[in-house]
Amino acid sequence: MTEPMLLNGQRLAAEMRGQLAAQIARVRAQGYRAPGLAVILVGDDPASAIYVRNKKRAAQEIGIEPVDAVLPQGSTTEDVLRVVDQFNQDPAIDGILVQMPLPPQIETETVLARVRPDKDVDGLTVTNLGRLTAGEEGLVPCTPKGILRLLEAYDIALAGRRAVVVGRSRLVGLPVALLLMQRQATVTVIHSRTPEPETIARQADILVVAAGKPHLVTEDWIKPGAVVIDVGIHRGDHGLLGDVDRERVWSRVGALSPVPGGVGPMTILELLDNTWTAYRRHEGLSE
Amino acid sequence: MTEPMLLNGQRLAAEMRGQLAAQIARVRAQGYRAPGLAVILVGDDPASAIYVRNKKRAAQEIGIEPVDAVLPQGSTTEDVLRVVDQFNQDPAIDGILVQMPLPPQIETETVLARVRPDKDVDGLTVTNLGRLTAGEEGLVPCTPKGILRLLEAYDIALAGRRAVVVGRSRLVGLPVALLLMQRQATVTVIHSRTPEPETIARQADILVVAAGKPHLVTEDWIKPGAVVIDVGIHRGDHGLLGDVDRERVWSRVGALSPVPGGVGPMTILELLDNTWTAYRRHEGLSE
Repeated sequence: MTEPMLLNGQRLAAEMRGQLAAQIARVRAQGYRAPGLAVILVGDDPASAIYVRNKKRAAQEIGIEPVDAVLPQGSTTEDVLRVVDQFNQDPAIDGILVQMPLPPQIETETVLARVRPDKDVDGLTVTNLGRLTAGEEGLVPCTPKGILRLLEAYDIALAGRRAVVVGRSRLVGLPVALLLMQRQATVTVIHSRTPEPETIARQADILVVAAGKPHLVTEDWIKPGAVVIDVGIHRGDHGLLGDVDRERVWSRVGALSPVPGGVGPMTILELLDNTWTAYRRHEGLSE
Repeated sequence: MTEPMLLNGQRLAAEMRGQLAAQIARVRAQGYRAPGLAVILVGDDPASAIYVRNKKRAAQEIGIEPVDAVLPQGSTTEDVLRVVDQFNQDPAIDGILVQMPLPPQIETETVLARVRPDKDVDGLTVTNLGRLTAGEEGLVPCTPKGILRLLEAYDIALAGRRAVVVGRSRLVGLPVALLLMQRQATVTVIHSRTPEPETIARQADILVVAAGKPHLVTEDWIKPGAVVIDVGIHRGDHGLLGDVDRERVWSRVGALSPVPGGVGPMTILELLDNTWTAYRRHEGLSE
């Protein structure tokens, strides 16, 4: 048996960022404005602050202008909505990202619902989820979009194949299931209430794990030769852990998107790509 | 082995219509206006004319005021949009139904997108599909909602069970898959590009067939004791046919929602129920 293939999201994301940077440089040279990405951070969660800093830096590196709004921990829903409205109206802003989680006193649904769908670069509004379900063009959530791009880059066939998605979140599980169906895969969604999930997972040619449980998936879950996408990310004693126990599945998988270095970098890339898409639509540039 | 159970949508829908009629009579007695349902029919397709007549009659029987707009076959998209706008603005109208299919020159997506989400009693707008995907409250497409109500009325457990949905349409397959997932079932969606669909179908405790192919499903598709919901409806030489070959599956199923008399009557019931829900929201009445 040949050695499994590592799906290198780190490298693919770097290549794609290079392409985006070149495209942005080209339109800038034609006199167009820079794409603008607004990032809203509420409160002083240190992990959120790091995520925001990384996203801003990634944007800046490819020529997207990051703008941030940092609100105090004690802000009200109304305070956040005012900032969202301001960015909604600002013609220099193409994408608006609200860093999650928000402090508990803030109504997250209300805030997300306020983001203009054409600036909703996280793809989290009801309008963009509805477009995805209806198969219409919109802005697609970043992690699911990144997973599909990674599979495509490695020429992994989807049509007619069995895919199993572990997890049914609005952010990852459901959108990735819908995208896989649109690409003609036969999709099963399993979750915390599924009895004997490993039996179902073993039917999967493509297994996407977004369960949020460290090392949930072991060799019992894997059909020999399966393509496994690990979406989990957890801080362990010796570094980052995924939802997949890499050591235990390694001898069975055909390909693996690892943690770290798989889906994580793709998610940030797709945030930039969605901002670029929103920008072109705002500027009337062809896709 | 015991005789399979017929899931009698005809009878359940009649009971529910009686309950709706009583609820509407109660609010009318308190001085509230009647709920209003607008039905838009474009062109002269005889089957569509019959559907519209049946829906109007069903509404009228329970105290919903039907209003119709009949437009000529040669109408433009703009003509239809004008009528939609009129009903959108009319405070006596709670629900708007656009009878499908529209003539070929009319942009169906554009027309559907124009219906105000709070009057979208077919649950077909992007907003209502997005709410369903996000697990938020909205108006749910009628056939999927009717299927869930039928399963519930017969106390068919869903949590932790395997469900297979045949078909991935925006109208039936995808919404019913999402609803089953929300009720803790483990759901697989199979479709025209699925190899060996009968093997997967045989894993189903609950099998929902919305494939649009007469008598597609035979005994090979059925796990003994499975609950089978037939959503297909086709005109055969000797009456109506479903997607399920009833004679061939009968000895294996635990329960069957037949054609006719199963999902069909439930779909019309849910149209009325959605109109009643929209009305209560418009009038600020508790749910």
